[in-house]
Order: sequence, then C-alpha cells, then structure tokens
Amino acid sequence: MRDTPYLAVDVDVLERNLEAMATHARALGVALRPHAKTHKSVAIAQRQLAHGAVGLTVATVAEAEIFAAAECRDLFVAYPIHAEGPRAERLRALCQVARLRVGADSVEGVRRLASAVRAGTPEAAPLAIAVEVDSGHHRSGCAAERAIDVARAAKDAGLIVDGVFTFPGHSYGRESRSSAAVDEARALGIARDSLTSAGIPCPVVSGGSTPSASSAHPDVLTELRPGVYALGDAQQWELGTIGPEAIALSARATVVSRRPGVVIVDSGSKILGADRPSWTTGFGRLPEHPHARIVALSEHHATIRFPEDEALPALGASLTVVPNHVCSAVNLVDELVVESVGREIDVWPVSARGANS
Amino acid sequence: MRDTPYLAVDVDVLERNLEAMATHARALGVALRPHAKTHKSVAIAQRQLAHGAVGLTVATVAEAEIFAAAECRDLFVAYPIHAEGPRAERLRALCQVARLRVGADSVEGVRRLASAVRAGTPEAAPLAIAVEVDSGHHRSGCAAERAIDVARAAKDAGLIVDGVFTFPGHSYGRESRSSAAVDEARALGIARDSLTSAGIPCPVVSGGSTPSASSAHPDVLTELRPGVYALGDAQQWELGTIGPEAIALSARATVVSRRPGVVIVDSGSKILGADRPSWTTGFGRLPEHPHARIVALSEHHATIRFPEDEALPALGASLTVVPNHVCSAVNLVDELVVESVGREIDVWPVSARGANS
Repeated sequence: MRDTPYLAVDVDVLERNLEAMATHARALGVALRPHAKTHKSVAIAQRQLAHGAVGLTVATVAEAEIFAAAECRDLFVAYPIHAEGPRAERLRALCQVARLRVGADSVEGVRRLASAVRAGTPEAAPLAIAVEVDSGHHRSGCAAERAIDVARAAKDAGLIVDGVFTFPGHSYGRESRSSAAVDEARALGIARDSLTSAGIPCPVVSGGSTPSASSAHPDVLTELRPGVYALGDAQQWELGTIGPEAIALSARATVVSRRPGVVIVDSGSKILGADRPSWTTGFGRLPEHPHARIVALSEHHATIRFPEDEALPALGASLTVVPNHVCSAVNLVDELVVESVGREIDVWPVSARGANS
Repeated sequence: MRDTPYLAVDVDVLERNLEAMATHARALGVALRPHAKTHKSVAIAQRQLAHGAVGLTVATVAEAEIFAAAECRDLFVAYPIHAEGPRAERLRALCQVARLRVGADSVEGVRRLASAVRAGTPEAAPLAIAVEVDSGHHRSGCAAERAIDVARAAKDAGLIVDGVFTFPGHSYGRESRSSAAVDEARALGIARDSLTSAGIPCPVVSGGSTPSASSAHPDVLTELRPGVYALGDAQQWELGTIGPEAIALSARATVVSRRPGVVIVDSGSKILGADRPSWTTGFGRLPEHPHARIVALSEHHATIRFPEDEALPALGASLTVVPNHVCSAVNLVDELVVESVGREIDVWPVSARGANS
C-alpha cells in the first residue's frame, strides 16, 4: 500500500496505445518519432523504439542529453534552440554522441547554431536542422513561404538540412482536429516545395500531434511526432481523440473531506498540474465516475462535484483521477508506479523530470 | 552564465518581505506561522524562524518530515489528513521528533488520527489537532457551528485540541481581500466560542492568507499562516496585495522566436506552472515590461504580446518572467538560484519539491 497521491501507469493500456500508433504510422507509410516530453521515461522510450519508432522527439537539450545517455541516439529537439552560453557547448557534445536534429525558425537562429557547433573545433560537428513553420497555432515557426530562407542560411552555414516541421497545436479544440491536419499538410507542402524548387532536398516533412495524428496526410508528411498518445489524458478524452479505456496514466487519490454532493481528494495541482483549457469541463476526469466533475483545484485539494443521484464516496475512499494534461503531471513526480491487471509490478523513474534547459 | 529557463530569488527582496510580515504580525500581536509549501526550502524556513516565526505551516506529512529533519520542530500540517496505511506510521514517527499539529474537519477523521497515533504502542503519541472550518472558500473545513463536534471527538479520543483554523481562499479575487478577512474572523469567532462555551480551551485561532493578512482581525486571530508573501508572484501583484518591487522570485527566460508584436520565450508551463485564474491578465507578468502580456503558454513556450509602441526584445535577449503562482513554480525545480544586487551568490535546494504525500 502506498500513500496517496501518486501517479500510476497501466502497462497493458500503454502497450496497446504504443502498438496502435505504430500500426497507424506503418499503415500511413510514415515514420513515427514519438515526443518523449510526455513521459520523460527511458523505459517508455525503449518500448516505443521496440515498436519501430525511428527515434525520439524531445523539447529541450537537457531532455536530449538524458535520452542520449540512455542509448537513444536519434533525437530531434523540435524547438527553435537559441545556441549561446553553456548550451552551445552542450550541443557540440551531443552531436558527438547522437544523430541530432534541432528546430530553427529564423536565419539568425541557424547562424548561431552553426557557430555553436563550429566553435573551438577545426570543423563543425554534424548537426542537422529542420525548419519550423507555423501551420496555424501561431506559436514559434516562420511562415511556410519563408522556410526556404532559413534552409538556405543553414546550408550556407554548413548545417545539414533534414527538412521541415510544424506543430499543429490548434488541433487542441473540439472541432478543429481534422481541419488542423489540413492546415498542417498545406503549410508543410508549401515549405517543402519552396526547398525542393530551390534545389535543397527535403527528405523530412514532420508533423503530427496526438489529436491530429488520425487525420494526418501521408501524401505530404513523412514523419509523425505525437506524444500524449502513449499515456492519454482527460484532454484527449474530452477532445474525443480517445476513450477512457485508452488512458494509461492516472493519479491515485484519497477522499479527505466530504459535504453534500462534494468530496475533496488529495490530488491537487501539485500532482495533476493546473492545465485547464476553456474547452475542458473541469480540472481532470474520473473514469469510474464519468459524470463527476473537478470544479476547483488547489495545490493539495481537488473539489469534486458528484451528480445528485450518485452515492458519494466514503471518507478515506481511493479514487482514480486522470489529469487534464499528462505531460504536466508526469513532470511533477520522480517516479511512475507501474501496474498490470491492478497489481504493482515495477517503478519507472521519470528520468527527464525538470529537464527544462 | 546559466542556461535558461531557471528560477532566481532576489535575497534582498526576500529579506524585506520576511521582515515586513514579521513586523506586521508583531504589530497585530499575533503569532506568525508561515506556510512553507510556497518555498519548500530549508534556507527560507530558517530565515522565517530567525525573524520570529513560532513554527512552520506545511501542507503534507511529507513536507513535515523534510522540515522536521532540518530541525524545524514546531509544525502544523494545515490539512485534513487521512491517517491510514503507511501514513499512520509516518505520523507516529513525526510525533516523536516534532511538536506536531494537524488539521481535522470531521469526527471520523479525528478518530482515525487518534487510532493512528495509538497503534502498536501502549499510549498515544502526543498529537495536537486544530479543527478546520469553512469561512467561505468552500474547500475542506466543517461549518463553524460544527467545530465543537470535531473538537469534542478529538478530546474524547485523547488528542490535544490546539484550537481552530481556516483558509480564506476566497481572498483571491480583486474585490474580496478585506471581505474575506471579515468572513474569516466571523467563522473563527463562532468556532472558538463553540469550543470555549463547551469548556474546551481554544488557545489557537489560526487564519490568514497573503491577500487577507493585511486585513486580519487581531481581536479574533491568534496566528497568521501566509505563504506567498515571502517570494511574491504575479497573482499578488494583480490582486494589488503587493507591487512588483516586492516580487523576489522570477524565471529567467530567453527569446527564442519573434514576429511582429510578439516574442516567444523558453519559460513555459514546465517552469512557470499553468495556473491561470480568470481574474489574471495572462500566464505571468514581466516587471521590466509591465504592459506586455503572456497571452499563451505551452510547456516550453510563453507567447508574449508587446504593446505597439514598445520595441520588441531581440532574439536571444534575456527576460525576467514572474509566474502567476509561486508555489507551483518552485515545485517544478530542484534548486533556486540566489542573487543579491544582480549577482549570483548561492543556490538553495528545493528540499520539499514533490513532497505530495
């Protein structure tokens, strides 16, 4: 028996999720490069590679360092890294031990990357870039038409150009999953064509989030980078991407207080994360009580309202709470308790927890 | 030079904040028992005790264990702990090394606490409780009129009754700081009177959040438990509790992407936390750019919109970003970089990071 709250992974659900996405990517004829920022766990990364993933996607240089040290040697830092200070030296070191691709969305950015990998050595370490384009999420990424400027600057500076990528983050909306996939394919197609028509090969056309993966356009994309699919979360459930049976990660919580219609459990924002997009119905979901709603969340209290016709759990009862955003929740713990058929079988360290830089 | 993002503490601002709240509590004639869940740092707790705090408030048994091991031996777990499983044994062990008070808001809860501290020993370990009452936040806590039931059950079960407490969390609203302090005093006064008129002494009447502390009613309260005041955050700035000059903790971030009117920096929700109450103007604030707003936040990207008449920071520029909720941000890092007059002078471990159970 463990004291709550803690995060548990159902390894059988995890395996089904990994297999399903691997099968989907194979059917589309595209490479699968799962985003490891979701799980930050070497044990899950190794399972993804065993299912045929070509490598991993990560968000930071620190994550790349941790997975490279665990023998994951084909890594894409899908982020416009600013290569100055200690990070420049860390990038050089990484290029020696891994096949490294990083994101870039500006001419200035790729020039700094090039000087970072060249600094202090007679020749540049072999660093590849992919040009990030904005397909409608309006976060980082250049306009698709400008991808050629970034690619040309990279080539001129001696970097390898792998191709182009985007994150269709606007797929996180109840009505926008398939339209975001259309936007993704359109932007990536324009960017790819701008490279190839300028004589720069573009072998990698990388897209894909968990919500848009099922609508991905294989006529344009060569690579998918979903992350959340491995573990699932309440956001994906509420988006309709998955059903609750595909959620592999949950918090175990204890009822610590009750009043009519409401229980308070000990899984607060310090174990679930505080993510609460406007289209969600609360701060997480309870698969065993699908009509209950987490109406308030503080650091160590989740306030759960139950329907009038449902019996309220007892004081001390154990509840299963699914976080809204699994990537945030995993980053709050040092280890994941691994279960199979309701029995604890292992503990996996969250090796890249807090690896922000 | 450090790679961004990281969290930095201005120790001079911290010291001013600690001194100001200690002076305020002394002027009111109430004890100060700061909430350590904000900073989770032994170094800051020791400074609070040096400023005259009577002890610490913590949120979990795990936090209590960490601070007790660091010689902080007067601890209040201001939470309705459910004392079963390993936690019951941990409570017994804690009672041997610290003067321990815990929260309780039900008769059933205090009975379990009592049997937890008695289990396996001829007599109970010396555990004190305070009855939690709901003063309007509607989280945990019993009705003020029912505090007597919980206190009597505790006394009957052989626990020490210290008194009553509340968390006026509804003080977190632009218009509700002083009215929440009125609610707090009213509920605590009713609860205290119900104990004393039944012949149960009530030496401790504990309240106080950072927003309500300045309006605390010393005719009722004997103890204040603010937490955020030590470090400050964007929520307190936007509530009007403090000005930006009293914010001691911030994230250091780097501009990684730009477009007209917008920069993207690398301090996302995995370093700032995702807290975003409806009354805030964004996902954090920039003291050096008070008119800029963080309009979107993902795990490693903060999207910052600048006013049209303000020059946009350059690619690679370093920005200072204040999280909305400091308690969430601190819990995301292993260490705080300590600065004085802009110079790094120390690194403090976040000893109780992730201490959720």
